[in-house]
Amino acid sequence: MKNCIVAQSGGPTAVINASVVGVVEENNKSKFYDNVYGGLNGIEGILNEQIINLSNLKDDELNALKYTPSSGLGSCRYKLKDYKADDSEYKKLLDILNKHSVKTFFYIGGNDSMDTVDKLSKYAELNSIDIQFIGIPKTIDNDLVETDHTPGFGSAAKYVATTVLESYCDSNVYPFNGVFIMEIMGREAGWLAASAALGRINGKAAADFIYLPEVPFSTEKFLEDVKNMLKVKNSVFVAVSEGIRDADGRFIAQMEAGGHDKFGHVQLGGVCGNLKQLLIDNKITSKVKTLELGITQRSAMHNASKQDIDEAYRVGSDAVVYSTKGNSGVMVGITREYNKPYKMGTRLIKASDVANNIKSFPREWITKEGNHITKEGIEYISPLIMGEPEVNTENGLPKYYVVNRDNIIK
Amino acid sequence: MKNCIVAQSGGPTAVINASVVGVVEENNKSKFYDNVYGGLNGIEGILNEQIINLSNLKDDELNALKYTPSSGLGSCRYKLKDYKADDSEYKKLLDILNKHSVKTFFYIGGNDSMDTVDKLSKYAELNSIDIQFIGIPKTIDNDLVETDHTPGFGSAAKYVATTVLESYCDSNVYPFNGVFIMEIMGREAGWLAASAALGRINGKAAADFIYLPEVPFSTEKFLEDVKNMLKVKNSVFVAVSEGIRDADGRFIAQMEAGGHDKFGHVQLGGVCGNLKQLLIDNKITSKVKTLELGITQRSAMHNASKQDIDEAYRVGSDAVVYSTKGNSGVMVGITREYNKPYKMGTRLIKASDVANNIKSFPREWITKEGNHITKEGIEYISPLIMGEPEVNTENGLPKYYVVNRDNIIK
Repeated sequence: MKNCIVAQSGGPTAVINASVVGVVEENNKSKFYDNVYGGLNGIEGILNEQIINLSNLKDDELNALKYTPSSGLGSCRYKLKDYKADDSEYKKLLDILNKHSVKTFFYIGGNDSMDTVDKLSKYAELNSIDIQFIGIPKTIDNDLVETDHTPGFGSAAKYVATTVLESYCDSNVYPFNGVFIMEIMGREAGWLAASAALGRINGKAAADFIYLPEVPFSTEKFLEDVKNMLKVKNSVFVAVSEGIRDADGRFIAQMEAGGHDKFGHVQLGGVCGNLKQLLIDNKITSKVKTLELGITQRSAMHNASKQDIDEAYRVGSDAVVYSTKGNSGVMVGITREYNKPYKMGTRLIKASDVANNIKSFPREWITKEGNHITKEGIEYISPLIMGEPEVNTENGLPKYYVVNRDNIIK
Repeated sequence: MKNCIVAQSGGPTAVINASVVGVVEENNKSKFYDNVYGGLNGIEGILNEQIINLSNLKDDELNALKYTPSSGLGSCRYKLKDYKADDSEYKKLLDILNKHSVKTFFYIGGNDSMDTVDKLSKYAELNSIDIQFIGIPKTIDNDLVETDHTPGFGSAAKYVATTVLESYCDSNVYPFNGVFIMEIMGREAGWLAASAALGRINGKAAADFIYLPEVPFSTEKFLEDVKNMLKVKNSVFVAVSEGIRDADGRFIAQMEAGGHDKFGHVQLGGVCGNLKQLLIDNKITSKVKTLELGITQRSAMHNASKQDIDEAYRVGSDAVVYSTKGNSGVMVGITREYNKPYKMGTRLIKASDVANNIKSFPREWITKEGNHITKEGIEYISPLIMGEPEVNTENGLPKYYVVNRDNIIK
């Protein structure tokens, strides 16, 4: 008996289940593994032997899962200790995998998950345990190094750009509209906020200003930007990343920050609320509307990018193919073969190179003034949002699929 | 020369432009009027002679406008004074309409706009001025009396229900997820928040609790509801209307309320923030996520209801037909001929009956406990969200149309 297991970790995306389905369907074809197991709630669940058999899923169930947003197998934010300090969890996890004849562990996640892949593969090698660990990328933040981009980003970018267009229409209806501020996810990098630049009407960007974490945020410059624009327009549209920081590296949202999560990241609150207050306090205008996109930007399968879904599926299916060649401690990265016409491929990247690293939005794709995105930045993102998914619908609504988590393997 | 004019007022909806296009295209067929003019920014713009000619629009422009969200002609929140106290604005408006040979004024709006239609038609009649005033309903709130429902509601309801499903998927991924609270628009009535009940997975509502303004909100009951549900589920999904009030009629959002608008409505802030604080302060759980849907729920044409778009168009085109029979001081209401299969029609309603009135969500469609919606309520809303629109797309995004406001008629 030779099985593999796939699990999901970290924040959900709209297309993370497509990677699971890619793994299962590739193996349904190749029969390289006897079974594809699913670990519930990432390594946290696997440590509690919360494992189900995904090879039992029928074709229509797999198709339904493929077009269901968010982590269908459940997720976790669980950080393994350094095995040099304490390897008890490593032993337990590998015992459980061995018990279930698991030869390959596919972990779908971001840079924290790649840290897990790296540690587990090194521990297994050190202890001569024949289990491979392969990472499959996902994050709406698009901030993983080495890979051209990450599955999940294209759909989130498409949702952001669509919502920019619709909010632009909504925020332009009165004789005087004041300022509209949209807050977009992206703790460390501005990729997703930059995608606001794709929302264009009559050849011009709907957003007047886009502020990213990659440029130190100056409140003086912001107030000046808005003030000057209000002299020529009756409405000003601002798109801003939740992660913007001042020149000293302090989050603009900091006054609402609520501590740190397990990985040491600052938890961010409402940047747009603070910017609104700035505009009012400085008497730029009292008419300010805000919109914090929140979790909709990472779960809106109804408006996902077909290209993104296809790529999420591809990194899953390619992970199975790569695994047959004995690779471990690696992540399936995406390459951009051409941009026009767009063509992607995959390649293996060391998980240790991706782990705990951040890829920033290039400074040269931000305008000199630091408040908008260049043509090059737009051309990079544009191919990733193409195409509409064939979401199953019922009674006018998408029909999503909930994985049965009851049939735990004994 | 015999012209008509159409204008938009109040908060935008995703489908309010379809009503404008219904007026223009019906007249393109019947040629009853020589021109359909468009008043920019409602009566506020018309008082400044901001008028354009919509009969010049080409077919592809009309089609693009039909599938563009928000008030393409601009909007206003402008309340006419009582003409008995001061009729100067009435005189000015009627002079402008006469100057442009306008025989019929179509006003697309909610109950405040129907107050305007009522007042203008009465003033015209009193002064023997031969101009008709006809109201065309729109509001995502669905709170107009006499009409079965209002254009704009179906699309907003569809967006809310879709987002409930996607947020449900997103808020269920961790071993313990705590409480998720979604805040939905609806200042006076709970129709839109009630539509959260349409979001169903595996035959069950995704939302555990739905709180509407029609039932006095008890913080004790709310805390008890959530506490009990957390005993049996690892995540609790709460949908709540921005308009919920306690037994004394005080808005739960009141501590963030910022005064009154011109019509005397209280401006509401974040209910979900206050409920979150309640849960934390009362030690129910500290894990609470919130999502305030904001303007996306009224502008998401990419996820609009085809039925709703068709009906918005129909009340516009029927308004022209009714106008040919000399009606004034009326609103085009929607009738529900059958529910299964659904069939709608239109009828005329006195604008004075609609003006300044509110239609509440029926108490008998709210469960006895006051925290969810009955089958009857769901069956009422369900037909209104059916079908997907044929939104024009370009580069993976909807292609929206901006009305050229420069060619003001002299």
